[in-house]
Amino acid sequence: MKSVSEVLPYMTYGGDYNPEQWSEDVWLEDARLMKKAGVNLVSVGIFSWGVLERNEGEFDFQWLDKVLDILHDHGVGVSLATATASTPAWLSKKYPDSIAIDKHGVPYSFGSRQHYSPTSPDYIRLVKILVRKLAERYKNHPALKMWHINNEYACHLSECYSANTEKAFRQWLKDRYETIEVLNEKWGTNFWSQRYNDFDEIMLLNNPPTFANPGQELDYKRFMDEAYLQLYITEKEILREVTPEVPVFTNFMFNFKPLNYFKWAKELDVVTWDSYPDPREGIPVSHAMNHDIMRSLKQGQPFLLMEQVTSQVNWMDINVIKPPGVMRTLSYSTVGRGGDGILFFQWRQGRAGAEKFHGAMVPHSNDENSRVYKEVVQLGQELKQLETVVGARTDAKVAILFDWENWWAVELGCKPHNKLKYIDRVKLYYQEFFEQNIAVDFRQASDDLSGYQFVVAPMLYMVKEGDKENLEKFVTNGGTLLVTYFSGIADENDRIYLGGYPGPLRKLLGIYVEEFDPYPEGKSNTLRYNGQSAPCYIWSDIIHLEGAEQIASFGENWYKEKPAVTKHAYGKGHAYYIGTEPDRAFLTPFIEQITTELHIQAPLKAPPRVEVLQRNTAEHNHIFIINHNDADVTISLQENVEYEELITGERVSKQLKVNAVDVAILKY
Amino acid sequence: MKSVSEVLPYMTYGGDYNPEQWSEDVWLEDARLMKKAGVNLVSVGIFSWGVLERNEGEFDFQWLDKVLDILHDHGVGVSLATATASTPAWLSKKYPDSIAIDKHGVPYSFGSRQHYSPTSPDYIRLVKILVRKLAERYKNHPALKMWHINNEYACHLSECYSANTEKAFRQWLKDRYETIEVLNEKWGTNFWSQRYNDFDEIMLLNNPPTFANPGQELDYKRFMDEAYLQLYITEKEILREVTPEVPVFTNFMFNFKPLNYFKWAKELDVVTWDSYPDPREGIPVSHAMNHDIMRSLKQGQPFLLMEQVTSQVNWMDINVIKPPGVMRTLSYSTVGRGGDGILFFQWRQGRAGAEKFHGAMVPHSNDENSRVYKEVVQLGQELKQLETVVGARTDAKVAILFDWENWWAVELGCKPHNKLKYIDRVKLYYQEFFEQNIAVDFRQASDDLSGYQFVVAPMLYMVKEGDKENLEKFVTNGGTLLVTYFSGIADENDRIYLGGYPGPLRKLLGIYVEEFDPYPEGKSNTLRYNGQSAPCYIWSDIIHLEGAEQIASFGENWYKEKPAVTKHAYGKGHAYYIGTEPDRAFLTPFIEQITTELHIQAPLKAPPRVEVLQRNTAEHNHIFIINHNDADVTISLQENVEYEELITGERVSKQLKVNAVDVAILKY
Amino acid sequence: MKSVSEVLPYMTYGGDYNPEQWSEDVWLEDARLMKKAGVNLVSVGIFSWGVLERNEGEFDFQWLDKVLDILHDHGVGVSLATATASTPAWLSKKYPDSIAIDKHGVPYSFGSRQHYSPTSPDYIRLVKILVRKLAERYKNHPALKMWHINNEYACHLSECYSANTEKAFRQWLKDRYETIEVLNEKWGTNFWSQRYNDFDEIMLLNNPPTFANPGQELDYKRFMDEAYLQLYITEKEILREVTPEVPVFTNFMFNFKPLNYFKWAKELDVVTWDSYPDPREGIPVSHAMNHDIMRSLKQGQPFLLMEQVTSQVNWMDINVIKPPGVMRTLSYSTVGRGGDGILFFQWRQGRAGAEKFHGAMVPHSNDENSRVYKEVVQLGQELKQLETVVGARTDAKVAILFDWENWWAVELGCKPHNKLKYIDRVKLYYQEFFEQNIAVDFRQASDDLSGYQFVVAPMLYMVKEGDKENLEKFVTNGGTLLVTYFSGIADENDRIYLGGYPGPLRKLLGIYVEEFDPYPEGKSNTLRYNGQSAPCYIWSDIIHLEGAEQIASFGENWYKEKPAVTKHAYGKGHAYYIGTEPDRAFLTPFIEQITTELHIQAPLKAPPRVEVLQRNTAEHNHIFIINHNDADVTISLQENVEYEELITGERVSKQLKVNAVDVAILKY
Repeated sequence: MKSVSEVLPYMTYGGDYNPEQWSEDVWLEDARLMKKAGVNLVSVGIFSWGVLERNEGEFDFQWLDKVLDILHDHGVGVSLATATASTPAWLSKKYPDSIAIDKHGVPYSFGSRQHYSPTSPDYIRLVKILVRKLAERYKNHPALKMWHINNEYACHLSECYSANTEKAFRQWLKDRYETIEVLNEKWGTNFWSQRYNDFDEIMLLNNPPTFANPGQELDYKRFMDEAYLQLYITEKEILREVTPEVPVFTNFMFNFKPLNYFKWAKELDVVTWDSYPDPREGIPVSHAMNHDIMRSLKQGQPFLLMEQVTSQVNWMDINVIKPPGVMRTLSYSTVGRGGDGILFFQWRQGRAGAEKFHGAMVPHSNDENSRVYKEVVQLGQELKQLETVVGARTDAKVAILFDWENWWAVELGCKPHNKLKYIDRVKLYYQEFFEQNIAVDFRQASDDLSGYQFVVAPMLYMVKEGDKENLEKFVTNGGTLLVTYFSGIADENDRIYLGGYPGPLRKLLGIYVEEFDPYPEGKSNTLRYNGQSAPCYIWSDIIHLEGAEQIASFGENWYKEKPAVTKHAYGKGHAYYIGTEPDRAFLTPFIEQITTELHIQAPLKAPPRVEVLQRNTAEHNHIFIINHNDADVTISLQENVEYEELITGERVSKQLKVNAVDVAILKY
Repeated sequence: MKSVSEVLPYMTYGGDYNPEQWSEDVWLEDARLMKKAGVNLVSVGIFSWGVLERNEGEFDFQWLDKVLDILHDHGVGVSLATATASTPAWLSKKYPDSIAIDKHGVPYSFGSRQHYSPTSPDYIRLVKILVRKLAERYKNHPALKMWHINNEYACHLSECYSANTEKAFRQWLKDRYETIEVLNEKWGTNFWSQRYNDFDEIMLLNNPPTFANPGQELDYKRFMDEAYLQLYITEKEILREVTPEVPVFTNFMFNFKPLNYFKWAKELDVVTWDSYPDPREGIPVSHAMNHDIMRSLKQGQPFLLMEQVTSQVNWMDINVIKPPGVMRTLSYSTVGRGGDGILFFQWRQGRAGAEKFHGAMVPHSNDENSRVYKEVVQLGQELKQLETVVGARTDAKVAILFDWENWWAVELGCKPHNKLKYIDRVKLYYQEFFEQNIAVDFRQASDDLSGYQFVVAPMLYMVKEGDKENLEKFVTNGGTLLVTYFSGIADENDRIYLGGYPGPLRKLLGIYVEEFDPYPEGKSNTLRYNGQSAPCYIWSDIIHLEGAEQIASFGENWYKEKPAVTKHAYGKGHAYYIGTEPDRAFLTPFIEQITTELHIQAPLKAPPRVEVLQRNTAEHNHIFIINHNDADVTISLQENVEYEELITGERVSKQLKVNAVDVAILKY
Repeated sequence: MKSVSEVLPYMTYGGDYNPEQWSEDVWLEDARLMKKAGVNLVSVGIFSWGVLERNEGEFDFQWLDKVLDILHDHGVGVSLATATASTPAWLSKKYPDSIAIDKHGVPYSFGSRQHYSPTSPDYIRLVKILVRKLAERYKNHPALKMWHINNEYACHLSECYSANTEKAFRQWLKDRYETIEVLNEKWGTNFWSQRYNDFDEIMLLNNPPTFANPGQELDYKRFMDEAYLQLYITEKEILREVTPEVPVFTNFMFNFKPLNYFKWAKELDVVTWDSYPDPREGIPVSHAMNHDIMRSLKQGQPFLLMEQVTSQVNWMDINVIKPPGVMRTLSYSTVGRGGDGILFFQWRQGRAGAEKFHGAMVPHSNDENSRVYKEVVQLGQELKQLETVVGARTDAKVAILFDWENWWAVELGCKPHNKLKYIDRVKLYYQEFFEQNIAVDFRQASDDLSGYQFVVAPMLYMVKEGDKENLEKFVTNGGTLLVTYFSGIADENDRIYLGGYPGPLRKLLGIYVEEFDPYPEGKSNTLRYNGQSAPCYIWSDIIHLEGAEQIASFGENWYKEKPAVTKHAYGKGHAYYIGTEPDRAFLTPFIEQITTELHIQAPLKAPPRVEVLQRNTAEHNHIFIINHNDADVTISLQENVEYEELITGERVSKQLKVNAVDVAILKY
């Protein structure tokens, strides 16, 4: 198989293209406008099953042949979809069992999208036929660059309660636990008389009268994740067989809880994802975090931004537009964080259907002088200057532990505090590095952490087999670890580690947490440290020192003066613990002090709201400076280095002015 | 057939009467109290199916015979209901398919009301039998004045997802589109693989995983509307056959979206409706708007207020009472806007059932000295003085375009801004005329507009075939048109007009709208005009002038100084466009300037919170002055006109004092 | 049968014990720690069906034998559960009809708890077998003290819509009304065409299109309540037969609307309940109210607190902890209000399952030095000093009327004001006595009230047959009655008393209420009395005096100066009426004046936030002084009385200092 950078040895630029919604004369106009905009890749066929297989076994590829020929003629490559993301009407009608079932036992309706059940044998059988047909037909077409498998798996439907799903879940459990006795033990079914004699007694939890067995809830999430992954692998295996050289992938989503993308990424030749920041949030820190997660999924291999919108989407309550220039700065932030391509949903704004008000590269007006199309053309032309960036890597010394199974477990309910979102705990720490322009990778607790100096583990509630040893090794070898409250609590079946919190991390952190004190809403406490104080929120741990030293204490409540933040010398390294949700008045200098001590720093110093990102290859370093301010900024450059600014081609040194809402990319 | 004013040649007064809930001795007491109150019409039998047909084919009319005889003996006419608004228990039990199905696939329960499915063949068959029986029995009864068909169609249930409904929907689509290819084109089914091979593949959209096909959603609303209308027509045809002279109608509701009343009104001999303003809103402008809509449905023909409450209802969260006098002032406002009758739900307050706390003309206490009954008696006696008003018309020079299909389309979802209620956009403009006491009719864009000088089209998102030409003709001939943002966007299948907004209205308005900018919640912008400024809300259009002149510009954001309000000279008239939601600080003088230029004015000048309404016949003009203030007001009358005040019978001229919460009706 | 105080002639102390979740070595550790903590009773087997009957007819009692032996050897008695609160997996699988059905027609899922349908014949049959087996096996075991039947009946599921339930409901109605004509009359089915020909036509109201028949809604609540009660009685009868000497009970819940505990209590040998105040509310007045209700259910017989938590629960949104000392003060408040035992859910904090974060007597850490376990040990040891309190009674001169059927009726909907919670109306008045430390019993309107001087009837909407006469008798004989707005409105079928509110109470109260004026949210009115004024909320009655005198009038609105609070001399007593929701600025002195006139007072004077409670036996009086303040307080004692403080054993007189968050118990 060819690597993606062999197939696409340039900054990829383009979008989703749905020619089946338009007549042939529009196809030619499209090709002309694509060329003008510098488009070199479009995704075709994502929702085309209904027009490719017009009835069971009746295939019609002629239109697609023509589309691919036109695109190829205009120098536009194709990321060809397998078209399995939504089943056609004839299929839903003929095979009612192919339709997913909701919590109320009601089948989903045809007339929207993604209503299929991932465990339906008929769906899987018909997918296999379609994918093989497509692969056979286009395996030699010169426009074919990559295979886009299905689309945004589990986007609307990540749970199904059909009889087929129940059957598959039971089988999955049998495969996992082998005997029902093991399952009973792992799920703790002696609680509330939940003991099973047989796997066939297990029911889906669509309608529990109250809190359900958390072990089962967790395993159902694992199962659904794997059911979708199995669909992907089924398609992938056929494509590999027919077109062994063509890279395959599917597109991921933002803060997407149902699918364990670390697991998925192993099966993708390139990570791609769809990013739709809401302009209402200002600088989209959480999208930056997702870029960094996406880059981390394949250990730093560049990703493609498969979808973003030129200006405004259609599916929020209020769909705010991106002002002039913002689409461009966000695109460069994406590239700076490891993106080797910028694509849009979609090429041409639709005339009918649920997404007709979703922005596109070409608006309803087809107006070549429209702001939107002009920005599209500008960016497409600029990206051509970035060839040396393709394939370049980010060198991060900081890692944040991020774990999908922990995410599922920590939000299951029946916790001391049930309004805590894991992603917000992670983002709190991410934001510190984001604002310091310090590169961050995301890792799981079981990953090799030896390349990092500083590892942050926010709310690592679930500690899986081997994690304890891995984290101890990291610190023993000189690493700095920071763990936060409600960590080290449960095993991979959400069973408590008995004998005192934080269970397996107790020795490493040198503390014993006796109690959890979640605060009523609107209440806070105070951190006291070095004669200073700052608010803290949400939760206090009642901490006893067992070798650690106290860095900060609580200022209020009956456990006043007891430790709130601790530091434990362990091996050659240190393990910090923060037993509360600190205000940034504490957290920012605290993190800064650690990074300073570890000599971890930004590529260049910059004022607030200026991103500075670095991507290196063996030959070149590239620094991206993205000014999100409404005013110009001036950046001091490294002494004695001469840079090339890639967009303008100018040589710069010493210092550089970057205009408001503008970008500079320095190569050296 | 006799016209309603032939049948009821006086101000109609009365209410819903449910004698089956009471014993015969109460009937006689009722008749006595009705006479005392001046009641001349009561609605009988609305929910009487269960006591009229006690089991399939077992009819019992004796009690109704007696009731009608007693009423007739006391001079009270009867609007006889067909009793089909709620099916009896035996029917629901015997014909389970007669019960409607909800979105979850669950049948509605018997034990409430209106649980029938409008597409049930059994329901329709049994309705036909009952209606014919009733008509045959009472066709010659002297008390019979009108037929009240069913009741508040679609009040609780406007959607059904039964198998019969699915079947009927498919047939309706077949009738509408003839071939599946046409349907595919109109619904844009190449989007999201929604293409159909056959009408039988179409499923109801009770449970889409995400946004559904908007073309289908829109057609489902059309279909359900017509399914109910067909029920009405089925009854009407039988009644016409048996009693060709007796007017028929059903009663309409407030701000009622599911039914296209313009279509329905064609099938009614008189428009009637049920008005329940919440006293919490103060002066019920939106109910005034509905009065004007009701009057407009049959081109100015007077309507009957079929239901209102004497003091408080039972179905709101908090059921606030009307203070002394308010029921009376609201009743006169109704008459002033075209009402030829005032009726209440209900005559006698119920003892049991869900509506027992709903106010009535006779309260639980049966107390003839109660405030409520005394107000009922006063109004009933007063209305006898208004005979010359019966049949009088309102002469409006202003029309607001109002369209049910546009309402359905604009609120379908997946729009740039998804929190916009069409009715609120209409009300914003209506309120200007309301407060100026300028009469307004409501019209559809396809209607003959030649009688109007000023037509306002708020958010005319859907422009149907012929609308463009009709509006252009209106302006060409000298009319003044005002169109607001998000107009001219989609055709009757909710497909976009390509080539630049506002599509078919672009030439008439002389503008091109390039982008929509919906504001985040809590944000606003500024209108700048004539050196003044005023806030604007919700949305900006990015407007290019194409012949129009700029009246106001935006004061903020990157499109600052671009046009916000425009005016286009076209033919002999002018077409205005407002590309935002203006504050009334701008809107009130803006509308006033236009009406002043067009010499459109109120019947008399009046201080705030005083309604002035006019109804004319060939012989007489009547001016209604309704003082909603807690203080007396003095109104200057027209010079040299001598008026008769109808309630007191006094002659007045020059000026008139109207007491707080009081009314004067001037005939001249 | 032995009485509970014979079986448990000491302060009972312990908790729920779930040994099946732990290995045998933990059982021995448990017994050791129980002994250390003074535990003398544990509840065993509540959710053990699945491990007691491992498959239909396959019983395994060996583990339970061993547990009971160990407990007995360590001096710990057992309240043995019948284990029927949650059905095992094999049962749910084998008998699908045993599963309850929700409003959407969807069966509940196995994998949580209490998913059984109370009307399932299979469930009932298998319950009978299990209960008899358990009773036979353990009837002679020396550890067996009491039978804990099922658990928290109807906790999650208080409604079922299965076919069996529908059938049972029809039968229940037939038994109640005998003929369908009676039912039609009682439910008022001539309203909305709801008439029935036959009981078999009645459907469950799981999915009414709008408001349902309130008579049916009320009877369905009665039926479900009785269906659960019948389950309880079924078990009780078997246990009585096999172990006639062993007391039986089930555990009640807080503010629990679905079950009429007055009716249930007749079938219990001792009332027990589970109290989980949310620390966010501060002093848990509403839990104190529930203690007093529980004590009242069996006419003053002491109750057991069957469950509370040591520190924090797991099922709230945020599970706030009890600070040091608070568990103890709340426990003594419980005892002071009539509790003869303090038990916890649960003994040992669980490792797995939905309740693993629910606090326990022994935490996850098993740490004997933990705050929680140490507080447990302290309380257990202290309670041993309270032997003379066991069986002692509370002597109340005040009763508040509290009625479950009234609760159901008043919250059915379609009322003048639909945001009124009955329990809040009751609590408003309870709070006055709570803060004055005046003992209050709870009674129904039909109960013998002759022992009370002052009876308060908050919102006695439903007046049942005989209630009027009973209340008149109470006042005639010299009692003081206080009735509040919206009383005397409906009969036991929720049908209005015609002829003027408050219907049957009109004569006794000497007033006629003409209208109800519920206020819009955020609005209030004013009470004027004795030259003073205070706000009032929610509602005004428009009152005419018919013998009563005016105590306060309304200060605003069109009924200004009309009566708001009245007093009627009747027989030897007085009947007050409050026609609004008064602010406490009025209510506190108003109630104080009445209690002063009646010489009703607290056992001792105390500053705010200090509870003073009294329990007497023939031999001793005991006064509980519970200081909820964060500061010490000093209490003046009765002159010339010498007391023994039970916890310290010290003699005290004249005055007593009680520390912050501390308790004193004075015997004399």
